[in-house]
Amino acid sequence: MNGVHVLPLQGIPEVRPGDDLAVLVGDAVERAGGLEEGDVLVVSQKVVSKAEGRVEQSGDYLGAVLREARAIRRRRGEFVIADTEHGFVCASAGVDRSNTLGDGWLVLLPRDPDASAAALRDALAARFGIAPAVVVSDSFGRAWRQGTTDVAIGVAGMRPLLDLRGTQDARGYELSSTVIAVADELAGAAELVLGKAAGVPAALVRGYRVPAGEGSARELVMPAERDLFR
Amino acid sequence: MNGVHVLPLQGIPEVRPGDDLAVLVGDAVERAGGLEEGDVLVVSQKVVSKAEGRVEQSGDYLGAVLREARAIRRRRGEFVIADTEHGFVCASAGVDRSNTLGDGWLVLLPRDPDASAAALRDALAARFGIAPAVVVSDSFGRAWRQGTTDVAIGVAGMRPLLDLRGTQDARGYELSSTVIAVADELAGAAELVLGKAAGVPAALVRGYRVPAGEGSARELVMPAERDLFR
Repeated sequence: MNGVHVLPLQGIPEVRPGDDLAVLVGDAVERAGGLEEGDVLVVSQKVVSKAEGRVEQSGDYLGAVLREARAIRRRRGEFVIADTEHGFVCASAGVDRSNTLGDGWLVLLPRDPDASAAALRDALAARFGIAPAVVVSDSFGRAWRQGTTDVAIGVAGMRPLLDLRGTQDARGYELSSTVIAVADELAGAAELVLGKAAGVPAALVRGYRVPAGEGSARELVMPAERDLFR
Repeated sequence: MNGVHVLPLQGIPEVRPGDDLAVLVGDAVERAGGLEEGDVLVVSQKVVSKAEGRVEQSGDYLGAVLREARAIRRRRGEFVIADTEHGFVCASAGVDRSNTLGDGWLVLLPRDPDASAAALRDALAARFGIAPAVVVSDSFGRAWRQGTTDVAIGVAGMRPLLDLRGTQDARGYELSSTVIAVADELAGAAELVLGKAAGVPAALVRGYRVPAGEGSARELVMPAERDLFR
């Protein structure tokens, strides 16, 4: 069947600090029938952070947000839009109140989400003999638009941007000026099966040819000199 | 097979003003094996606009952009971020230079993309006996992030936002505060098979349960009073 298929990875238990996420995800991949060449694994930031111990018990949510922030873009009371250390712009500098660890537990972004993605890729390659591209995803709000969409905060085994500049379209009429944030679209596609209430923290996207190469999700960050909304 | 499947709708010819897009898309749906209950049709704004005659031949690209804009957010020479009449915030107020109609042709956004989506939905329902949800998609840049992602500018037969506020998560620990822009994620997922150079202007997303009801893509527009980036 042609097209792109998004498979939920089911049966992954609640992730706790110190868990080996690659084993938990690998077991779910095995239950789903294993990896195929070209698969993209999308895994939710929350389980990556938990496995890496990027959690803390603190009653001071706002303090954690301000500590994790490199810069504040906007603030209305406890609602803060901030730049993270990685350069991402998002609500609360990526700090989430945990819904599973218990009262007062906070989940912070991974220190290096690209490295988190690379570690998962390497572990799955060793287990299955096929190295998937990996996207670590998080739910970000957007300027001007309601609702969150999942985007990529870490990638491995792919370039996050599909650069069509200099290519001709199907009719050969014109060079394209388009750069597509495919890692974000992959994260959003995976969110359709992850769901926020379903207990499915990872998915495989099958049948999409990712832009080849080694990239970083930091390429998705608008450089300051091109940022009209700083 | 569980999960979500994104099927490209192939063989749709170049769309010209006056073409019956519902027939062209319907023929492609038929070639793809017909509709299934719950399918979401995602169709690129560009072919919707062309079919509706929202094109013009003009050497004055910037003039068209400024005319289509209700307000300018930022401007750097010919690069304009503007509010459209519909309330969307995007580059060039949605005006594209055509890559197929010929030199100097511009494609404008549909006047009422929700109505465009509803017309496609009704025509396909009449032909196939199944009414798909329909998303009209366009490629938008984002504040702070590089690259475009496809988002919804028109919807029919679904609500564009999945509102999880007031629901409990899988573990029952906490009420969620999440509203997910699923229509945008569906548009982005479809873009993975649309491609910019592939001549595939529409796709079916199968296996995703859309939020039930009748909605408008204008629900995706951040209301002015909540817009921190106006």
